[in-house]
Amino acid sequence: MNTMPIYNAPLADMRFILNDVFNAEQFWQANENLAHIDAATAEAILEEMAKFAQNVTSPLNRTGDEEGAHYDQGQVTTPAGFKDAFQQYAQGGWIGLGADEEWGGQGMPKMLTVLADEMLFATNPSFMLYPLLSVGAGMALNSYASQEQKETYLPKIYSGEWSGTMCLTEPHAGTDLGIIKTKAEPNVDGSYHITGTKIFITGGDHDLSQNIIHLVLAKTPDAPAGSRGISLFIVPKFLVNEDGSLGERNAVGPGSIEHKMGIKASATCVMNFDGAKGFLVGKENEGLAAMFVMMNYERLSMGIQGLGASEFAYQNAAQYATDRLQGRSASGVQSPNKPADSILVHGDVRRMLLNVRANNEASRAFAVYVGQQLDITKFSTDPEAVKKANNRVALLTPIAKAYLTDTAFQATLDAQMCFGGHGYIREWGMEQCVRDLRIAQIYEGTNGVQSQDLIGRKTIKCGGAFIAEYISEIRDFTNTLGADLNFIKDATLDAATEVEAITQFIIEQAAESAEFPNAAAVDYLHAVGLLSFAYMFAKISAAAKEKSGEFYQNKLALAQYFVGRILPELESRIKKIEAGSDLVMSFTEDYFTTQS
Amino acid sequence: MNTMPIYNAPLADMRFILNDVFNAEQFWQANENLAHIDAATAEAILEEMAKFAQNVTSPLNRTGDEEGAHYDQGQVTTPAGFKDAFQQYAQGGWIGLGADEEWGGQGMPKMLTVLADEMLFATNPSFMLYPLLSVGAGMALNSYASQEQKETYLPKIYSGEWSGTMCLTEPHAGTDLGIIKTKAEPNVDGSYHITGTKIFITGGDHDLSQNIIHLVLAKTPDAPAGSRGISLFIVPKFLVNEDGSLGERNAVGPGSIEHKMGIKASATCVMNFDGAKGFLVGKENEGLAAMFVMMNYERLSMGIQGLGASEFAYQNAAQYATDRLQGRSASGVQSPNKPADSILVHGDVRRMLLNVRANNEASRAFAVYVGQQLDITKFSTDPEAVKKANNRVALLTPIAKAYLTDTAFQATLDAQMCFGGHGYIREWGMEQCVRDLRIAQIYEGTNGVQSQDLIGRKTIKCGGAFIAEYISEIRDFTNTLGADLNFIKDATLDAATEVEAITQFIIEQAAESAEFPNAAAVDYLHAVGLLSFAYMFAKISAAAKEKSGEFYQNKLALAQYFVGRILPELESRIKKIEAGSDLVMSFTEDYFTTQS
Repeated sequence: MNTMPIYNAPLADMRFILNDVFNAEQFWQANENLAHIDAATAEAILEEMAKFAQNVTSPLNRTGDEEGAHYDQGQVTTPAGFKDAFQQYAQGGWIGLGADEEWGGQGMPKMLTVLADEMLFATNPSFMLYPLLSVGAGMALNSYASQEQKETYLPKIYSGEWSGTMCLTEPHAGTDLGIIKTKAEPNVDGSYHITGTKIFITGGDHDLSQNIIHLVLAKTPDAPAGSRGISLFIVPKFLVNEDGSLGERNAVGPGSIEHKMGIKASATCVMNFDGAKGFLVGKENEGLAAMFVMMNYERLSMGIQGLGASEFAYQNAAQYATDRLQGRSASGVQSPNKPADSILVHGDVRRMLLNVRANNEASRAFAVYVGQQLDITKFSTDPEAVKKANNRVALLTPIAKAYLTDTAFQATLDAQMCFGGHGYIREWGMEQCVRDLRIAQIYEGTNGVQSQDLIGRKTIKCGGAFIAEYISEIRDFTNTLGADLNFIKDATLDAATEVEAITQFIIEQAAESAEFPNAAAVDYLHAVGLLSFAYMFAKISAAAKEKSGEFYQNKLALAQYFVGRILPELESRIKKIEAGSDLVMSFTEDYFTTQS
Repeated sequence: MNTMPIYNAPLADMRFILNDVFNAEQFWQANENLAHIDAATAEAILEEMAKFAQNVTSPLNRTGDEEGAHYDQGQVTTPAGFKDAFQQYAQGGWIGLGADEEWGGQGMPKMLTVLADEMLFATNPSFMLYPLLSVGAGMALNSYASQEQKETYLPKIYSGEWSGTMCLTEPHAGTDLGIIKTKAEPNVDGSYHITGTKIFITGGDHDLSQNIIHLVLAKTPDAPAGSRGISLFIVPKFLVNEDGSLGERNAVGPGSIEHKMGIKASATCVMNFDGAKGFLVGKENEGLAAMFVMMNYERLSMGIQGLGASEFAYQNAAQYATDRLQGRSASGVQSPNKPADSILVHGDVRRMLLNVRANNEASRAFAVYVGQQLDITKFSTDPEAVKKANNRVALLTPIAKAYLTDTAFQATLDAQMCFGGHGYIREWGMEQCVRDLRIAQIYEGTNGVQSQDLIGRKTIKCGGAFIAEYISEIRDFTNTLGADLNFIKDATLDAATEVEAITQFIIEQAAESAEFPNAAAVDYLHAVGLLSFAYMFAKISAAAKEKSGEFYQNKLALAQYFVGRILPELESRIKKIEAGSDLVMSFTEDYFTTQS
């Protein structure tokens, strides 16, 4: 068998979701800010990205893992082929696909860019992280920087001449940014003198672009303690002359790169700021809000990283299972002229593949759904709709990040298992897929932290208002389904009722015990995630029901699989929440390190 | 913080389980074949192994991963330090710890050796695989080889002068050994001419011992098709002269080694048999039974691999969580003189650590329990007891292999997550732990195949007799618990009733549909695994209740955690089984590779 991993962009499902499930063209055409986009434009973009992913980034995935990013004497080089691929990517206009046309972007809606991103993450997550950080930096600048700063930096970031990073984490400060130590002392010329060490900086140095624009969180001398005293600075690798050309090298550079479990072709740098010149973005002490613009963007992207990996894993596992002959069907020999049947005859192999495929199709629909909500916040002219969509995005960002990566990671494990021993061997590419994806559950706020965000700020803090609005929408939609879709209608409505009840329980318990939410958070995130996937399958089923043919029949069958074999996990999640936090908090701190 | 991984052998829990939970000394003393072992002997052995694991194998774990096994021109070398460690291990008499004294072993019971194995797996799984295969080969020879073969091979295997392998898998034949192609043609001198290629051969070549004794499955020219036509052969790397000295090099050797996700210091070889001289073990066409002696031994060992990794992961994650200061407690500042509280104040971090610790303590008890059953089969003089224990071992071997590695893998992921971004960085050792353990779910029969074994041969085939006997024992024990242990009594009895009912359902469904069991198998394995852990916590609780002090109180608290926050998964597993196999089997084979 051929060990070379395959990837064929899932354009049929992307079309189905955009056109049939979400009626994207109608949505775009109804909005004056998006009316320049139609289905044909979207189709052309997806087809071009499919070619790029299949022909350019896919072949560099295994070699990039084997070679890795390389650090030598203060300089990072990317694996062979990455520089050329990045140039092609930049020249194709892909970096600015979703950016404002004013700064050289293409102004495409998020509903569409999530699908383009999926293909790149599927074929080469290490590569994808380089432009992704540029786009994130661009978003933060677009929202908070001065007009002059935007003019200086944005066009060159979107053209790929320059790239961007986000410098948050320090050795002692990850989740808790309030305790960072990096200092920013004002210079007489209005710039700042930046000193400190940042770690885990994706793309902190590399050879893909002429300049790297670091966005750095630091504290000014008189800043208040904690997260209210953090400011955001632009620290370019090379200072920029008034005419936009590159000036002298700034006092910032990588001290080393990390050796990691995966995404080895992505340079993860320790960055030393040794009195580097920095430029304040926005106002002092308001840096965290600016950074969160970027963070929220990245968080949805991490969910897409999960989806991409899961789709890649699925395609390869399904092909392997089709080709691999081993054992005989329980109901009798299926291929008498072969020494054994394909392992696809075994229910357990199918169970694993269907878990992955159900994850992919629900995740893709969910990504487009959240993308649509983001588009409403950005492009809608109706303040009521914007407000509602903002709440929805706030609620669903932790789901998009954490639930989509948790389920995708499990999916890649299922896919790897379909390969038996070959799944553990590097040349088949499945173990790399697992290693590469694992980081998505950890970075940009661990999935535990995402769960805290969901249960705390997004649910308890608003008295459950956001989730109530969401459940209301789910009920409104699901109630329109006909009796022939009772299997998904009933399952979704039941799940909505259960999530509603457990949300109420959580709010009540939180009023009694400050410790309750934290211990319940991950199970709650999964409960809301399961409901969200049920909602997506309700939408998918409604769209498929309108059509005839095997493609659509299979959509309905996969929805039934989800209801019967995945959704039941909701019961356990709810029971675990109900068990409360006393079981968790009653142990002394010493217990954990006392030898058992 | 110090990135060097720690390991302290969990001797306190081992003592508690052996002495308090299973009254091991009483059990040994009551059996004439084990009466030479007392608690003091067991304690001395565990303490010595703890020193060996902490001082010898632990320091070689990270370096072994970085260096890996090395193949060059037909020879494999192990990483620096492995040869010396193997010699120390052999000289300590550890290889034959559980082997018969007649052949140079120490005759120790399995109840004890599982705990010794755990320490080695915790500190260096790659290293442990070398002696493990020797022990497995020794067991197969001890059961099936001729007296002369035993005299020739066993003492040198147990002394570590020679080592052993098991050569089953071929490129096209893994789970389905019935289709192997390796040929064994009889020579006139009674030996055989072995020709073929085997893959995934652990320790197929290395530099640790003077000779390597390969146990090879092959087909004789007139063998029946399928698994009834497989014979077992001894194929030594160096032929053995009549006086026991090494003779000429046999025509067997490694063609390459695999590059793997983990256990990189363990040489996984492609083995070429180019007309090698082989010696039949037992009778022609009865090789699979002999190999299964070895396989069953290895399968329990893989569960111990899981336990070892999970314990290692726990200790490091608990220490990291204690040291890492980040954020503040939900109920107010806990360490006002520090910049932040330890992350142990967060319920979600505790949830992850408690998941791991509950897994460790239940797994350890379960391993000792299965070890005791194995000891009954080997040492008891009561035929009724032996028969009952044989059935119990048959039932629980797939649980020991698959459930213990599934839960342990999840545990190592939880532990890795406690480290945040540092969990993804190689120097901290957590990502290696995850990578190294992943193979345990795959090799020695994938966990899917174990599940088939449990639901098919071990349950449906005997009409549920084995599980009924097990449930009966669980009920008998659990009913002796007092009302003060109602939390675990009720939970265990409820779980027993649920597993009993779903077993009955499965047997009924299997009679209707040949496809049903395969699709339900993994969920059933997890259901029986959860019941088994509940039973273990019932035993742990009963023992702890008899004592006073914090150590024992914590055992009860952890049992409560298990009931509230882990056992509820049973509900979902049962619901998924009830959903049936039609959802899985209704898709055409083409569906899986059709582009979505």
